[in-house]
Amino acid sequence: MSEPLFDTLAIIGPGLIGSSIMRAAREQGAVRTIVTCSRSPETRQRVTELGIADKVVETNAQAVEGADLVIVCVPVGVCGTVAEEIAPHLKEGAIVSDVGSVKGAIVRDMGPHLPGNVHFVPAHPVAGTEHSGPDAGFAELFDGRWCILTPPEGTDAQAVDRLAKFWRLLGANVEVMTPDHHDLVLAVTSHLPHLIAYTIVGTADELETVTRSEVLKFSAGGFRDFTRIAASDPTMWRDIFLANKEAVLEMLGRFNEDVSALTKAIRHGDGDALFEQFTRTRAIRRGVSS
Amino acid sequence: MSEPLFDTLAIIGPGLIGSSIMRAAREQGAVRTIVTCSRSPETRQRVTELGIADKVVETNAQAVEGADLVIVCVPVGVCGTVAEEIAPHLKEGAIVSDVGSVKGAIVRDMGPHLPGNVHFVPAHPVAGTEHSGPDAGFAELFDGRWCILTPPEGTDAQAVDRLAKFWRLLGANVEVMTPDHHDLVLAVTSHLPHLIAYTIVGTADELETVTRSEVLKFSAGGFRDFTRIAASDPTMWRDIFLANKEAVLEMLGRFNEDVSALTKAIRHGDGDALFEQFTRTRAIRRGVSS
Repeated sequence: MSEPLFDTLAIIGPGLIGSSIMRAAREQGAVRTIVTCSRSPETRQRVTELGIADKVVETNAQAVEGADLVIVCVPVGVCGTVAEEIAPHLKEGAIVSDVGSVKGAIVRDMGPHLPGNVHFVPAHPVAGTEHSGPDAGFAELFDGRWCILTPPEGTDAQAVDRLAKFWRLLGANVEVMTPDHHDLVLAVTSHLPHLIAYTIVGTADELETVTRSEVLKFSAGGFRDFTRIAASDPTMWRDIFLANKEAVLEMLGRFNEDVSALTKAIRHGDGDALFEQFTRTRAIRRGVSS
Repeated sequence: MSEPLFDTLAIIGPGLIGSSIMRAAREQGAVRTIVTCSRSPETRQRVTELGIADKVVETNAQAVEGADLVIVCVPVGVCGTVAEEIAPHLKEGAIVSDVGSVKGAIVRDMGPHLPGNVHFVPAHPVAGTEHSGPDAGFAELFDGRWCILTPPEGTDAQAVDRLAKFWRLLGANVEVMTPDHHDLVLAVTSHLPHLIAYTIVGTADELETVTRSEVLKFSAGGFRDFTRIAASDPTMWRDIFLANKEAVLEMLGRFNEDVSALTKAIRHGDGDALFEQFTRTRAIRRGVSS
């Protein structure tokens, strides 16, 4: 095992992602000491029982004292408040990061609170499951997944490099892009699919002619994937849609146009149009130019 | 191994489903002899090389001669033509079935061609992968999956029982329902999800601001499931949407209303409405009443 990349890591929010980072960081020897925090006595006790942190404190401010790397792992909607809370307690030269699925809003909400003597490098590990909480985490969550870093203009390149090394050590591939481009890419690869999955599962559940038990029983035909996606954390996803509103509405508009075209083809019995569309999307999966 | 349920099984169409039935039937000793057919010399050669049938013939008519169980495993749109072709060659008392994902249209298209001295028991094994062809099949495809039988009114109960036994021997759970109810259930659990997946993958591919390679690279956030579904066989799915038009349009209409409601919530920043919907769909997955 090589020398730790950071002395002390503080994880604000020991949920699925936060607790997975702690597990992976310890397994890889990426840091010397891991501190986390929770206002809830139950969560503090559970994290202590799990033994995934060296120190479990009560407040965000306590957690970041002396930390070299601070990763905020809370829903996007409260990241700004957390930044305000921790700002006065941050160690000079510390790297402050997050794991939010939206990056423009994070830069806007967290950035202004952070002092000039720390390095702010927002990040988004594109990984997760439909489960939540400290028990749901596991060290291999980031293996072979992408972690996107979106440093605002003027961020220290060495700080970006150190955080990239950290994520690579945890098993992730790292890519750097602007916050705005990140939000467009994720709107289509993640936010739109989630919104559609949430919708379709709701639609199915409101049918008078087909029971819920039938829907679940015969879900192997495609529906099952949607129920898994639609079981993701409601708070996290509410915040994502509010924070990435413009890009999501743009993708929804395009999606709706495309649904209308296919609906029309079905209504008019236009088999050729359907066949053409389905052939094209199949080629995309295979990574073949159509 | 118990006594075979049928002497000779004829599979019309040795693709993903047909070749999986042959493999599973042989592995389970469900039949004594397996016959299949293809007009294409290449397919005949490949099936012979795979060794999954006892006899590989050229025409559908030859295949069904003397068969006790005939399973038509071709796209829904050509099932009527196949029924017409095989009708004069069917053995008295034979059971004729299919594997189509739509059942009303199958009853309508195949039924009238079949002679009164055979038993017509349409079936739909709710199982599959995004791959096609004889090489894609495997014996375990039906393990723990549902196979829905939709005998038209007046079908011989013993014939239904024998076919149910056959499918159970292949590992499936069997359920019996009317063709119309089947088509409603599958419209929501399978056809609508496929249509949406085909749409969203197409929408993503037409963006000017996000490249195809970015879409594929960061697809772990939800999109990947959609690309897999949207890689399903284009001919099969074209036929399904044409054959189950009414039920699919009905589900699409409801889905569109629900998309509109969520779009409005996002546009107006109505976090409570989003949270409520996402909490409800999560409960569905967990099989809990919300």
